[in-house]
Amino acid sequence: MKTYLDCFPCILRQSLEATRLSTADKEKQKKVLGRVMEYLIKSDSQLTPPHIACYVYDMVRKITGYSDPYYSIKKKYNRIALNMYPKLKNIIRNSNEPLLTAVRLAIAGNIIDFGVGNRFNLKNTLKKTLSQKFAVCRYSFFKEKLKKTKVLLYLGDNSGEIVFDKILIEEILKRYKLKIYYAVKSGPIINDATLDDANEVKMKDVAEVITTGSSAPGTILSLCSKEFKNIYDKAQLIISKGQGNYETLDTETGKNIFFLLKVKCALVAGHLRVKLGDIVFK
Amino acid sequence: MKTYLDCFPCILRQSLEATRLSTADKEKQKKVLGRVMEYLIKSDSQLTPPHIACYVYDMVRKITGYSDPYYSIKKKYNRIALNMYPKLKNIIRNSNEPLLTAVRLAIAGNIIDFGVGNRFNLKNTLKKTLSQKFAVCRYSFFKEKLKKTKVLLYLGDNSGEIVFDKILIEEILKRYKLKIYYAVKSGPIINDATLDDANEVKMKDVAEVITTGSSAPGTILSLCSKEFKNIYDKAQLIISKGQGNYETLDTETGKNIFFLLKVKCALVAGHLRVKLGDIVFK
Repeated sequence: MKTYLDCFPCILRQSLEATRLSTADKEKQKKVLGRVMEYLIKSDSQLTPPHIACYVYDMVRKITGYSDPYYSIKKKYNRIALNMYPKLKNIIRNSNEPLLTAVRLAIAGNIIDFGVGNRFNLKNTLKKTLSQKFAVCRYSFFKEKLKKTKVLLYLGDNSGEIVFDKILIEEILKRYKLKIYYAVKSGPIINDATLDDANEVKMKDVAEVITTGSSAPGTILSLCSKEFKNIYDKAQLIISKGQGNYETLDTETGKNIFFLLKVKCALVAGHLRVKLGDIVFK
Repeated sequence: MKTYLDCFPCILRQSLEATRLSTADKEKQKKVLGRVMEYLIKSDSQLTPPHIACYVYDMVRKITGYSDPYYSIKKKYNRIALNMYPKLKNIIRNSNEPLLTAVRLAIAGNIIDFGVGNRFNLKNTLKKTLSQKFAVCRYSFFKEKLKKTKVLLYLGDNSGEIVFDKILIEEILKRYKLKIYYAVKSGPIINDATLDDANEVKMKDVAEVITTGSSAPGTILSLCSKEFKNIYDKAQLIISKGQGNYETLDTETGKNIFFLLKVKCALVAGHLRVKLGDIVFK
């Protein structure tokens, strides 16, 4: 997905939020916004929004000298989600269709996204998502594909959400015999999950944890490592979580990519021909 | 109120909306955003947001060649509000405290604001505002001041809303003997009311209609005409509608200004120490 003019105010808002988490120095905050605007004026609109975000968060980092503004937010949401883990497992245990319920939970977890804003209610979203109608649901096709899959690549999105992903992986492994790779970002960006988060939630108990080789808040193949691309190439099925991965992989053809997300941006909604707030399994 | 860094993304969003209403030419849209960002980088943060908006909407005008992007929106909301007029008069007729109900209606009409966004529901706001608790309410003080007022200056805000203002003025005139001036903007900006709108709703039947002498979406005294300032000076009481007038007159001392508004921006809310969505009569 290319970057639209509507993305400019949103990117500016995001960079201000990240900067404020990094420094209270108003001069530095103003400097970041100035640099971001200078960059946006000249930016290539063919780049995806996560690609633009790479440059922007890099400016925040360089000007504030702080590399991980969402550090404590990431820890907080890992903790919250880990505390919810027994309750979530219970929901699945009591479900008539445990795998689909796990898919729903994984989508609910996708609300923990500090890129699109910081106002969300995890508990309400969870409750709603368990009964919400899918705008797009390719669940039967997904199960069919799983049967034939030997290698599955799961592209993670945010910290906290990673606990919900782990639960979905556990449900997949109960039913299918396959190798699962779980990919996180190689460095901190927004509240995207990194190796630190994967360790915190013990993801390695269910999957081989790898990094994309890039800290882009999505999967920009041209920025990914050779090791990642090898696994990407050999995977017969890819689960892509969240908007960032959708925005960067929507044009990929010839791969079995299932996009699992909660739609939190009007442009992504338009692109998917669904509504804001919809849940998608495509 | 000075312009905060949070205003930058909002101003950018506003300029994109106004530009899109003016032209479908994507190159021109991009050019406007570029110019607006160039301006914001160098802008003086001591200026109020409506002052910044003057420059920004001027850029939209110059680049698109279109001076009144909200023209049909303004006509539409005048029509909607005029159609509501008999019903609104009925609400007042059935009220135990007609003047306060008229104040409430005037605040409800303040939701018709295309500066802060374009998603609002006039009917729901109306219903809610009739029973909503005021965050600040200086109604008794207002009535006291009205008794001693010979000249009242009413600073209008938006088209459509102007019909609600007229109803409040009618209720004031039923109870107090005074001269009322109703001020509109001298040229089009966002959906702010101009002479055209005042004529459309026949404001001159209840007040002497004047312009501020400026098209700023607020009352920036340094940009207003001498004629306006004379009336401003001689008025014993001023009713200031909406956020734009609040943002530009909040630092005025020594004048009896009653601010009547619905709070639609988090920064204004913080400034007033109230919550987003609150209604204020201060």
